[in-house]
Amino acid sequence: MTAPELIKEKAQLVDSYIKSFVINYEASEMGLKGLYESMKYSLFNGGKRFRPVLSILTAELLDYPAEKILPYASAVEFIHTYSLIHDDLPCMDDDDERRGQPTNHIKFNEWTALLAGDALLTESFYLINSNYLDQPELALRAGLELSRSAGPRGMVGGQAIDLASQDEVKIDEDLLTHIHNLKTGALIRASVVGSAYLAQASAEEIALLKNFGEKLGLAFQVADDILDHGEDESASYTQLLGLDGAKSFLEKLSKDCEDSLKTFGDRAKDLKLIVDYNLNRDK
Amino acid sequence: MTAPELIKEKAQLVDSYIKSFVINYEASEMGLKGLYESMKYSLFNGGKRFRPVLSILTAELLDYPAEKILPYASAVEFIHTYSLIHDDLPCMDDDDERRGQPTNHIKFNEWTALLAGDALLTESFYLINSNYLDQPELALRAGLELSRSAGPRGMVGGQAIDLASQDEVKIDEDLLTHIHNLKTGALIRASVVGSAYLAQASAEEIALLKNFGEKLGLAFQVADDILDHGEDESASYTQLLGLDGAKSFLEKLSKDCEDSLKTFGDRAKDLKLIVDYNLNRDK
Repeated sequence: MTAPELIKEKAQLVDSYIKSFVINYEASEMGLKGLYESMKYSLFNGGKRFRPVLSILTAELLDYPAEKILPYASAVEFIHTYSLIHDDLPCMDDDDERRGQPTNHIKFNEWTALLAGDALLTESFYLINSNYLDQPELALRAGLELSRSAGPRGMVGGQAIDLASQDEVKIDEDLLTHIHNLKTGALIRASVVGSAYLAQASAEEIALLKNFGEKLGLAFQVADDILDHGEDESASYTQLLGLDGAKSFLEKLSKDCEDSLKTFGDRAKDLKLIVDYNLNRDK
Repeated sequence: MTAPELIKEKAQLVDSYIKSFVINYEASEMGLKGLYESMKYSLFNGGKRFRPVLSILTAELLDYPAEKILPYASAVEFIHTYSLIHDDLPCMDDDDERRGQPTNHIKFNEWTALLAGDALLTESFYLINSNYLDQPELALRAGLELSRSAGPRGMVGGQAIDLASQDEVKIDEDLLTHIHNLKTGALIRASVVGSAYLAQASAEEIALLKNFGEKLGLAFQVADDILDHGEDESASYTQLLGLDGAKSFLEKLSKDCEDSLKTFGDRAKDLKLIVDYNLNRDK
């Protein structure tokens, strides 16, 4: 199986699960109906489901069934989705389009988009808290990992540093790596590590997968920068390291990812496929 | 002890706990520093700590120590605080002042206020997930109660219905009660019920406290409407029922609250004091 086929297969599981969950989002009241429509609009805007697919592949690596990890995987996707809605708002990046479609606040309105983001963030913890009562301690640890990665110590903090540093004359490699680790890396790491907790990974396995998730999160961002090379004026690895330097850095990170997976042997073949895919992706 | 003295004493416990928690909010990066300042600004803007005080009194009623419920009580306060920051934003109520001070986005800026709200919401689950690993199943149930009450099935849903119905010609009593139950009542109920879960309440006790929390949440709103009578043009109980009608309704709700507490006898005296306080409050 190729990486795109693998991603597509697992993404369909995520789509089905989220569809079955949001089927409860039926309301007759005007405001609630608008809120639900807005949440569903952004949940199904053609995202690749990269993060939840990672959760599934991590669970499967640890012999934990995909269907049991879907609530957690979807919780990660809910958080990713809320972050995109809020990032697009006028007071943040002020974007009118995402993936060729109107952004949430253009399609609906600003207050609906704001509340849809708040609702999706809250729902991600509802998903975890309502689906893992049979393994409560591991669910708390997964929720802790997710809340740490999504909040001020992670994604939200990275976004704040990024916005505040946009007027800075010079961003060095350390600061850029710090921003990316928080803004993108932390949630990618949590998609792996939270899943590993729920899949009853040992402490040693958790440590390896933490390292894997961290390196993959950064590799994902460097690959994005390489693809966007020349298009974007903001700070990037290609700007800091040059195109060749960025490519070498991506290769090094991909190697680190594979090293972290060595202990797992052949069981890690799907995750390795993702690492390779990211190394060579053209979109 | 009078109700204001009781509230003040318990609110000081909450203040101390939140202070000790946010002491970790130290950062050298400009953006993160601004985010943390903004979060602390709204956490300490002179709020009464009504919700976390309810959590403490509920825990004490069930012989669960106040200090053990403080993380959960603070989680509720974090959610209340985030909701005020987002409600004040230009795309929502567009308020420049709250309690005589500049609102968060006026004091800082819009994107900082947006992210501070997102961060506080996420941190509320961090607080729960990191502090109750010794009773994980009850923590999951408390987190479930909180996420249900704060999300689209609760507070966020109520806010959406409220905003969407502001252009409506006529709001009847059923719709007004529905909005208030979601927008204000749900989180007040969760401050009681989540605490009861963690305090190892029996199923019967949970049922009574659910009813108590629900009625108190509505009573709190009706008392607010009575205090605001004549000042506000938006839909209110005094507008729908008249001032005397609203007062009778508040008395009925207060009586319902006390009935729900009967089983607990003298142990419920502090919660009863709060019910009385709300019935007669002048601010």
